[in-house]
Amino acid sequence: MALQDIYRTSLALHTDLYQLTMAYGYWRNGMAERESVFHLYFRKHPFEGGYTVAAGLEHAVQYLQQLTFTDDDLLYLGSLKGSQGQPLFETAFLDYLRQMEFSCDVDAIPEGTVVFPSEPLIRVRGPLLQAQLIETPLLNIINFETLIATKAARIKEAAKGDQVIEFGMRRAQGIDGALSATRAAYIGGADATSNLLAGQLYDIPVRGTHAHSWVQAFDSEEEAFEAYGQAFPKDTVFLVDTYDTVEGVKKGIEVAKKLQPQGFVFGGIRLDSGDLTYLSQQARKLLDEAGFAQTSIVASNDLDEHLITHLKQEGAKIDVWGIGTKMITAYDQPALGGVYKLAAIKAETGDWKYKIKLSEQLVKTSNPGMLQVRRFYNQERNLADMIYNELEPLPDQVQVVHPLDSTRRKSITSDTAYRDLLISVFTKGKLVYTLPDLQSIKSNTKQEISRLHESIRRYVNPHSYPAGLEEKLHQHKMEMILTLRGTK
Amino acid sequence: MALQDIYRTSLALHTDLYQLTMAYGYWRNGMAERESVFHLYFRKHPFEGGYTVAAGLEHAVQYLQQLTFTDDDLLYLGSLKGSQGQPLFETAFLDYLRQMEFSCDVDAIPEGTVVFPSEPLIRVRGPLLQAQLIETPLLNIINFETLIATKAARIKEAAKGDQVIEFGMRRAQGIDGALSATRAAYIGGADATSNLLAGQLYDIPVRGTHAHSWVQAFDSEEEAFEAYGQAFPKDTVFLVDTYDTVEGVKKGIEVAKKLQPQGFVFGGIRLDSGDLTYLSQQARKLLDEAGFAQTSIVASNDLDEHLITHLKQEGAKIDVWGIGTKMITAYDQPALGGVYKLAAIKAETGDWKYKIKLSEQLVKTSNPGMLQVRRFYNQERNLADMIYNELEPLPDQVQVVHPLDSTRRKSITSDTAYRDLLISVFTKGKLVYTLPDLQSIKSNTKQEISRLHESIRRYVNPHSYPAGLEEKLHQHKMEMILTLRGTK
Repeated sequence: MALQDIYRTSLALHTDLYQLTMAYGYWRNGMAERESVFHLYFRKHPFEGGYTVAAGLEHAVQYLQQLTFTDDDLLYLGSLKGSQGQPLFETAFLDYLRQMEFSCDVDAIPEGTVVFPSEPLIRVRGPLLQAQLIETPLLNIINFETLIATKAARIKEAAKGDQVIEFGMRRAQGIDGALSATRAAYIGGADATSNLLAGQLYDIPVRGTHAHSWVQAFDSEEEAFEAYGQAFPKDTVFLVDTYDTVEGVKKGIEVAKKLQPQGFVFGGIRLDSGDLTYLSQQARKLLDEAGFAQTSIVASNDLDEHLITHLKQEGAKIDVWGIGTKMITAYDQPALGGVYKLAAIKAETGDWKYKIKLSEQLVKTSNPGMLQVRRFYNQERNLADMIYNELEPLPDQVQVVHPLDSTRRKSITSDTAYRDLLISVFTKGKLVYTLPDLQSIKSNTKQEISRLHESIRRYVNPHSYPAGLEEKLHQHKMEMILTLRGTK
Repeated sequence: MALQDIYRTSLALHTDLYQLTMAYGYWRNGMAERESVFHLYFRKHPFEGGYTVAAGLEHAVQYLQQLTFTDDDLLYLGSLKGSQGQPLFETAFLDYLRQMEFSCDVDAIPEGTVVFPSEPLIRVRGPLLQAQLIETPLLNIINFETLIATKAARIKEAAKGDQVIEFGMRRAQGIDGALSATRAAYIGGADATSNLLAGQLYDIPVRGTHAHSWVQAFDSEEEAFEAYGQAFPKDTVFLVDTYDTVEGVKKGIEVAKKLQPQGFVFGGIRLDSGDLTYLSQQARKLLDEAGFAQTSIVASNDLDEHLITHLKQEGAKIDVWGIGTKMITAYDQPALGGVYKLAAIKAETGDWKYKIKLSEQLVKTSNPGMLQVRRFYNQERNLADMIYNELEPLPDQVQVVHPLDSTRRKSITSDTAYRDLLISVFTKGKLVYTLPDLQSIKSNTKQEISRLHESIRRYVNPHSYPAGLEEKLHQHKMEMILTLRGTK
């Protein structure tokens, strides 16, 4: 098995111990099969942004498809001891796990969809034990990939149509920290990657030229350029800053002129250090004067959406943006704080009991029910998102209440077009969803972002898109909070 | 194959495309087998710290042991096209890759060793093509694991002997972003983890209690606590902040008293929100008054070394620190900027040619030669590190020159004890190193850190440990810089 299969192997132990201690507790209390509803959502857009791009569902699906406890897993769990040497788990519980078959309903918002705080990206309905167990792996996968897709969308936005190349593998957080982030970056907006494995596994276009070591390995920069130009006569990009950037550009031009009679195409130069505005302007001038107006200037060196914008404002002459560390790790916010909360559980009577987790901060109080997200739209754009409880009837005319400021409300007329974002992925543990191919996820993202007003797409101080709770759900939540606090 | 084997599978394509374009270029120029020396090192401690803990070597070794191009890999490489539809690589080159057997000498500093800027953590000597090819995967593995081990060491330092539990999987960057980081965090100082897979694969102690959802799943907090206490009567830790923290503590105490006659041991409570200083003091008081002076207080909620220090200074009564996002992603600096640079290459004459990569910043100019690191020490502590070129004879009395300020020098008397840090890992591609077990790596780290003066261990504004270039190497480097700049 190769790395591509890591999400396709049973990784039942890729979870927190407490999921197993709770599982044991539920089992022991006869609650393992109690029907319950959990939601995975985030509370705040990453990077102080105005929107988030959902990603990671494909890996989550692959993970769930393979979820079984192997003999090795059970042997390990059976070997765990408490502080007094007693086994942590009973054998009968391990037998229960051995026979467990994933049987939850999973609904999710497809990858590449633009999403907003409190909206469930994934909803799990099924036996309490199972729905609880998958909390950690789902968060691990969805938090990370959603984070990177969003970062890439912002960077692509800043590049204003220029090519964005991902090449952060060397600084990524582990092997699939590179691999799954490359896929997510491609979904979000990157046009290509340096990561060959991602190229092979996901059919993402790969790009790359040479390193400083190539230049160093030769006796002179000219020799190095000439040898590289001869190896790749139709696509040469010279890295020009090994010794002195402006001299490097001049040598690149000399070599290109020398090789031109052989049909050489001077694809580009790459700048990887120094003042990129000044150096790109100098390089552009030298290239243009030498008749290489079509030769691109590729720039890299700790770039992100903010630096790209500054460079553009300063008049840098950069055509292609090579993005490493800042995108592959989402450097300025390397984790999305997505959570997974219980929202409803069936009583023995068969009635649903709604559940919230209280917090001193309203933003951290979860929403009760079995939630769906309705997106209202007109031809040009999305108008508002409404989180509602599918277990309760909706009024004819709905009102969306801002989740943190109930005085901000938006009425939706009953003739407004809409679609519900969560779609069925697993029914009783059976996959009922056809995973879309990566190219269509990528175009979906582009389309989705284009339907947001540009004030929401702004990556500094964006306007806030109207996304909130349906009025009855809001009322219900408020009542539950007051009851739990004993003030009602 | 399970996840544990991802580093044990051939992942020849887990690299940047440019490693292959350069490989092709070297092959085409008859330079593929030219003997060369590369060093992997970082330029600056992460987190503004005073030391760094090396980690990741085991995974790097496993990666290198399996390095071969499979038929699928070669098929993929053969399918790559240039911009005009021409194949990127010749078939004869792909055949060369098919037959390639890893044959480099690899020397490395063992995991858990304290290291300093410019010191090669890994030195690769061998055929230029191979030594170049492995740049990206080595950086990917070593940068990340070294980063996390260092972060964990700082957090453990701040905890001043208290237990530190890693539980960041849900916010980690992908599956092995969690798994290899958990191992690195354990090396650096974490005492246990919530990550069951890491527990199974690396024999790291696992810890965990229950989530808010456990409490929510019951009709009352008391019922939830009682059920949990009965499931784990000897090791119960109650999470007390689902609804109201102080009330939660009181309910935990009631339940503990109720269960005590059955032999229940009240292990601890966990606080996961709110003012941890105030709440821990309240909780401590309530617990002590109720006769539970031995019951621990576990705290979590976006903690790192700085917050732990503040909480301790404010008098928080916390015994165990649960660390998530901030450690598993190294949140305040999620990438170590390690690099991999060519330092020498053999001419056709058989003589070594030394190589540097220039930069406008001295810190970014690489060091020439085949480098070794000599650590001088006395009984109590390490005195200084000296990077020297093994290809040149050393004078009897050596002097260490600060790499960025040549006026700062330290003379070492010839009777000073020392050891060389880089040890042989592969000889001509053959593994000659016995990977130490994780427990001894972990104790090594502790020992290593204890040999640093506390001013260097300080995690804000630390003193700088004397680590620099041997005087002749320094001279040589300066001459090379001046020559390359044409000013000599």
